[in-house]
Amino acid sequence: MDNRFKKRVMLMRYDIAIIGSGPAALSAAINAKIRNKSIIVFGSKNLSNKLVKAPVVDNYLGFSNVTGIELMESFKKHLDNLDIEIVNKKINNVYAMGDYFALMSGQEMFEATTVILGTGVEFTRAIEGEETFLGRGVGYCATCDAPLYKGKTVAIIGHTPDAEEEANYIDEIAEKTYYIPVYDMEKTTGAGDISENIEVISSKAVKIEGETHVNKLVLKDREIDVDGVFILKDSVSPGVLVPGLEIEGAHIKVNRDMSTNIAGCFAAGDCTGKPYQFMKAAGEGQVAGLSAVSYLSKLDK
Amino acid sequence: MDNRFKKRVMLMRYDIAIIGSGPAALSAAINAKIRNKSIIVFGSKNLSNKLVKAPVVDNYLGFSNVTGIELMESFKKHLDNLDIEIVNKKINNVYAMGDYFALMSGQEMFEATTVILGTGVEFTRAIEGEETFLGRGVGYCATCDAPLYKGKTVAIIGHTPDAEEEANYIDEIAEKTYYIPVYDMEKTTGAGDISENIEVISSKAVKIEGETHVNKLVLKDREIDVDGVFILKDSVSPGVLVPGLEIEGAHIKVNRDMSTNIAGCFAAGDCTGKPYQFMKAAGEGQVAGLSAVSYLSKLDK
Ligand SMILES: Cc1cc2nc3c(=O)[nH]c(=O)nc-3n(C[C@H](O)[C@H](O)[C@H](O)COP(=O)(O)OP(=O)(O)OC[C@H]3O[C@@H](n4cnc5c(N)ncnc54)[C@H](O)[C@@H]3O)c2cc1C
Ligand SMILES: Cc1cc2nc3c(=O)[nH]c(=O)nc-3n(C[C@H](O)[C@H](O)[C@H](O)COP(=O)(O)OP(=O)(O)OC[C@H]3O[C@@H](n4cnc5c(N)ncnc54)[C@H](O)[C@@H]3O)c2cc1C
Repeated sequence: MDNRFKKRVMLMRYDIAIIGSGPAALSAAINAKIRNKSIIVFGSKNLSNKLVKAPVVDNYLGFSNVTGIELMESFKKHLDNLDIEIVNKKINNVYAMGDYFALMSGQEMFEATTVILGTGVEFTRAIEGEETFLGRGVGYCATCDAPLYKGKTVAIIGHTPDAEEEANYIDEIAEKTYYIPVYDMEKTTGAGDISENIEVISSKAVKIEGETHVNKLVLKDREIDVDGVFILKDSVSPGVLVPGLEIEGAHIKVNRDMSTNIAGCFAAGDCTGKPYQFMKAAGEGQVAGLSAVSYLSKLDK
Repeated sequence: MDNRFKKRVMLMRYDIAIIGSGPAALSAAINAKIRNKSIIVFGSKNLSNKLVKAPVVDNYLGFSNVTGIELMESFKKHLDNLDIEIVNKKINNVYAMGDYFALMSGQEMFEATTVILGTGVEFTRAIEGEETFLGRGVGYCATCDAPLYKGKTVAIIGHTPDAEEEANYIDEIAEKTYYIPVYDMEKTTGAGDISENIEVISSKAVKIEGETHVNKLVLKDREIDVDGVFILKDSVSPGVLVPGLEIEGAHIKVNRDMSTNIAGCFAAGDCTGKPYQFMKAAGEGQVAGLSAVSYLSKLDK
């Protein structure tokens, strides 16, 4: 870790930091707020892409035959009534510091005594070599690691148009930048705003190669020599987000009270396992929220 | 077991029987119904006394600041839209018969391939001697065991006015019937409709005594000689309801998929443990419902 941590004397320490803004995270937030805890919730303004995309929802008890958007509106109203705001930032890393957690969003840091992970699941598979070279040329946060690539060659695999801004930023520092969009750059709204210096490749990343460190990215139809590869998705896998977190298959291992193997860190929703459903996520979010509250009250004694 | 089981050739076998009508049971019901399973739901017309009694509910995501009654109305509307009916009967026993379950409601029997328990929790403590003499003079279903008490003396401890009807029935068979209401018989709505032959005692049951079989009920201020004691509550403890069910403390032991130690039997809501909350109950109900569905689909293969 670096000198960003020196800033911490100035920071407010929240009781509970909630990462995510789907039903799991929101249910945790309302329960924690009702219990008078200071909370901060990180996510996106539209709450959850999955919520927005659900055409009809009929299995959330109390809401019969609604659209995902209608359900989202009810959730937003509930948040408004309780004065809960969503901070529109992505958290890249969470470090367990002993008696608190440090949450990194790019260069910014936040502190909280407990953390609740409601990050959902991403259905994209890892690229061959991604896990092997993680931290040795493979990264998930371009703005965090950019300084390491001064004068070097970097490839960026962007899963959403948001990644283009990060690519532009890297390009100011790196010698050569490649950008490989996973989406259709012509047809996706908000896409295409990329610096002219960047070489955009319409292909598919197949494999990351190297010796002790990354030196090559194999695409479907060509290979490129690189010093680093950034893979920019909407959410990072929980094991990468929180180093040391116990994972079982693709999911965070939780106990019945939604605690994880790290004291003070709880999880809820899709990220803890199937079934992937709104109500299951909200129920677990409530339990995680209340478990964090009772964890805090034990600390006070 | 007795010859009531001989009737079973005539019975319809449901895919899923759901016991209870609180949020846990209802969430299981809507999810099972959407998956096209044949279901039967046992409970009460007002769904759940706890739902009716909750003055304000603010922690059920999507419903901000509603009364318990308003929440109940939304649940009822959801059930109506999916054509789910609540059968207004109490289940006294569930027997695992191998490849199906037999559910007893008084003299009536129902069959189902799987069972979901959403029975909530009762906060009343057992009376001293209650567990010792269970099945040896202590019972929870007067209409089931009445024939055993022909010409004998029976005491009935009634927790709700519903118990009065059972007392009247017993009295037709027994030689002498005592009725000890736990509620205020003068002030409770629906109370007081009891046969003149029955001796009503306004006191508190303290202890059940006997040798191999019950012979005495000790009240706060007197003792009565009896051959049997019936304790009639809104719900029976899960271990009594389902013989062989693994219990942990006061709760049903469940796995993350809401399965219990008995194959095909699932549980959800307050009966599986704290926190006692609507959303937690509904989330678990959904998981139990979907787990029962996937259990059934494995049987079909
Ligand atoms: C098209 C579609 C239809 C569906 N229909 C239904 C349905 O009818 N019924 C049903 O029950 N389920 C349905 N689902 C499933 C349901 O959407 C999910 O189970 C549910 O959204 C899971 O909730 P969650 O809170 O765990 O995660 P999500 O809803 O996925 O929310 C997580 C959110 O947190 C944010 N986030 C993640 N990581 C970070 C980070 N590091 N920093 C900051 N923010 C972060 C992101 O904004 C992300 O969207 C559907 C899913 C899809 C895709
Ligand atoms: C006054 C009060 C206020 C509350 N306020 C809140 C609140 O604001 N927020 C919150 O989240 N929680 C609140 N709760 C807690 C909440 O009511 C419970 O957690 C919730 O009702 C549990 O749901 P359940 O489905 O597990 O069981 P229940 O709601 O208890 O439902 C079980 C029902 O099943 C039926 N049943 C049981 N056994 C049988 C049987 N053998 N045969 C047939 N039917 C049977 C009965 O009708 C019973 O009512 C409150 C509770 C009370 C008492």
